[in-house]
Amino acid sequence: MTKNIQITIPELPSGKLTESHFKLIEGEIPSPQKNQVLLKNIMLSIDAANRAWMQGATYRQAIEPGDVMHGYGICSVVDPNGSHFKKGDFVFAEIGWQTYGVISATEITACPDHKPLSHLLSVLGIAGKTAHHGLVQIGKIKEGETLLVSGAAGSVGNLVGQIGKLKGAKVIGIAGGQEKCDWLVNEVGFDACLDYKAGKLGKAIAQTCDKGVDVYFDNVGGNILQSALFNMNQRGRIVCCGAVSLYDGQSLAGPVGIPGLIVVKRLKMEGFIVFDFPEKDVEAENEIKTWIERGELKIYEDIITGLSEAPKALVGLLNGENRGKRMVEVT
Amino acid sequence: MTKNIQITIPELPSGKLTESHFKLIEGEIPSPQKNQVLLKNIMLSIDAANRAWMQGATYRQAIEPGDVMHGYGICSVVDPNGSHFKKGDFVFAEIGWQTYGVISATEITACPDHKPLSHLLSVLGIAGKTAHHGLVQIGKIKEGETLLVSGAAGSVGNLVGQIGKLKGAKVIGIAGGQEKCDWLVNEVGFDACLDYKAGKLGKAIAQTCDKGVDVYFDNVGGNILQSALFNMNQRGRIVCCGAVSLYDGQSLAGPVGIPGLIVVKRLKMEGFIVFDFPEKDVEAENEIKTWIERGELKIYEDIITGLSEAPKALVGLLNGENRGKRMVEVT
Repeated sequence: MTKNIQITIPELPSGKLTESHFKLIEGEIPSPQKNQVLLKNIMLSIDAANRAWMQGATYRQAIEPGDVMHGYGICSVVDPNGSHFKKGDFVFAEIGWQTYGVISATEITACPDHKPLSHLLSVLGIAGKTAHHGLVQIGKIKEGETLLVSGAAGSVGNLVGQIGKLKGAKVIGIAGGQEKCDWLVNEVGFDACLDYKAGKLGKAIAQTCDKGVDVYFDNVGGNILQSALFNMNQRGRIVCCGAVSLYDGQSLAGPVGIPGLIVVKRLKMEGFIVFDFPEKDVEAENEIKTWIERGELKIYEDIITGLSEAPKALVGLLNGENRGKRMVEVT
Repeated sequence: MTKNIQITIPELPSGKLTESHFKLIEGEIPSPQKNQVLLKNIMLSIDAANRAWMQGATYRQAIEPGDVMHGYGICSVVDPNGSHFKKGDFVFAEIGWQTYGVISATEITACPDHKPLSHLLSVLGIAGKTAHHGLVQIGKIKEGETLLVSGAAGSVGNLVGQIGKLKGAKVIGIAGGQEKCDWLVNEVGFDACLDYKAGKLGKAIAQTCDKGVDVYFDNVGGNILQSALFNMNQRGRIVCCGAVSLYDGQSLAGPVGIPGLIVVKRLKMEGFIVFDFPEKDVEAENEIKTWIERGELKIYEDIITGLSEAPKALVGLLNGENRGKRMVEVT
C-alpha cells in the first residue's frame, strides 16, 4: 500500500477515442470520510458503454473532463470504516480507473461467493444478465425462431447467441472479420455468422436468414441496424441493447425505414439496460448456472493485466478486437 | 344503373401525388362471376395510407399502374348472385374508386346496423378503432401521463387526443398551421397544440410538455418523430401508426437518435394496424359508443360529394387540409 495510481481523461474526445486521451497520474491513497469505505481495485469491467458515458448523461451521470475515468468492477475492502463490510470482502463498486478509491457504503454491493471472481463480471454478471434479460424479457425469443445478433463476438453478443441456441432458435451472428465469424460458428456454436466488413450485409442477412428475422438483438445501431430492419419478419422484435457503432465519434444518422417499416411489419423496438429487471435476476442467474454446470454454455473471457493497460483495452474493444468479456485485472 | 365510372391511376407518382395522376373513365357495369357479388359504391374512405399503397407492398398488395385506384368503403349489394347477402344490404368492401364493382362474397363484410353510415368509417370504424387500439393496446396510456399526438387534426389524431383526455392524460397535439391548432384546443378539447410549420418544434414540445412525453402517437414520422423522440420520458412508448410525412415522395431518412435514445431512455416503439386487435374491437366500440351517448366524444367528419372529387380529396388530405375523417360520398 503505497501510492494511488489513477487514469484520468483530461479532455473528452470529439472524434475517435485514442489512448492519448488518457493520462496516468500518481497520488496519495485517499482516506475514507464518514460513511465511506476504502476499496482496492481488483478487476475492472471494460465496456463499449464506457465510451457512451463520454457523450453526455445516459442512464447515469456523464464523464466530465479531468475525471478519473469512470468504471465499474470488483474491489476488496481495505478499510470498512465502521460500515457493515469486513476487511477483505469482495464488493462491486463504481470505483473508476484507479487502484484505490473511497466510496459511500450505500453505493457498494457485496459480491456473491463465487470463484473465479471474473465470472461475476462476465457470464454471471452484467454481460450474462444483459444477454438473458434482453433475449427473454424484451426479445421473447421462441423455439424455432430466427435470432440475429450483432456485436456477436462481444461480451453480450456471444452469450446472446449461445442462449438463443439453448432456447431453440436458429442463431445468426454479425461480427467484423471472417476470423471472428469462423470462431463464432466453429467454437461458440452459432449456426452462421456474417462479416459486416465484407459489404452487402442486407443481402447476406436475407440469404442466411431464409425465413426472415424474428428477433434482432442490436448491440451496434447504425447501418447494421438498418440492414437488419429490412429483413425483419412481421411482428419481429428488435432488442435495443447498445449502439457501439455510434459511440466513437461517428454520425448519429438514424436508420432509413423508421418508422415506415415499424408500422408495415408491426415491429417492436425496445431499449433496456441490465438493471431494469431486478426481479428476474435470480431466475436468469439460475438458468445460466445450470447451463454452465451441464457444460452447455461456454465462458469466454478476455482478461488484460495491469491498470495502465485499461486505455488500450477500451480503445481496442471499440475497434472490435475482443472476444468475449473484456476485463482489466488491477495488479 | 347505366355506366360504371372508374378512376384509374395510369402511372404511379415518383414524387408528390397530384390530381393529374388520375384518369376518369367510363365503362360497362361488370357482371358478377361465380361467388362474386355486384356492389354499388356508397361512401369511400380517403386515407393517407392510400398514398402508401402506391409505394409497394405494405400490409396489403401494392397499387399497380393502370389499376382502378384502390379504396375501401361502404357499398350496397346490387346483385347478391346466390350469396348469403341480400339486395340492398350495406357492406364493407375494397371496391376501389368506381361506382360499381364485383367482389368475391368472402371478401365482403356486412355493416352493423347503424345510422349514419359514415360513422362506420369514422368514429365507429377504422379511424376510431385505430385511435383506441393504438392508445390503449400499444401506448398503454395511463391517467396523469402526457400524450403527444401528431397529425392531430386528422381522422385518427383528433380521436387519439379526445380518447387521451377521456383516459385522464394531458393531451398535446401537433398540427400544421395555427388555425388547425386553435380548432384542436378550442373545439376539440386538446390541452395545447403545436404548429410544426412554425419551426423549432423540439423546443416547443419541451416547453409545452413540461413533464416530458410518456406516450407519443406518431401519424407522421420524419422530423416530427425526431423532435418527439428527444422529448420522451424514460420508459416512454412511441405508437407507430403512420408515416404520412414520408408517403408523398419525400426522403425516407430515419430519425437521429435511434437507437441511442431508445436504449438510454428504455423506450418502446411499436407499429400496428387496426386489424391487429380483432379480439379488442367490441370493447373499443362499446367504450366509444358510451362516450358518444354521453356527449363526451365529438365526431368530426369531412364528407366530400362525388366520386370525381376523390383525387382532389386525397391530394388535399396529403396536404393536410382535412379536419377529422375524410370520406367521399359516391353519388
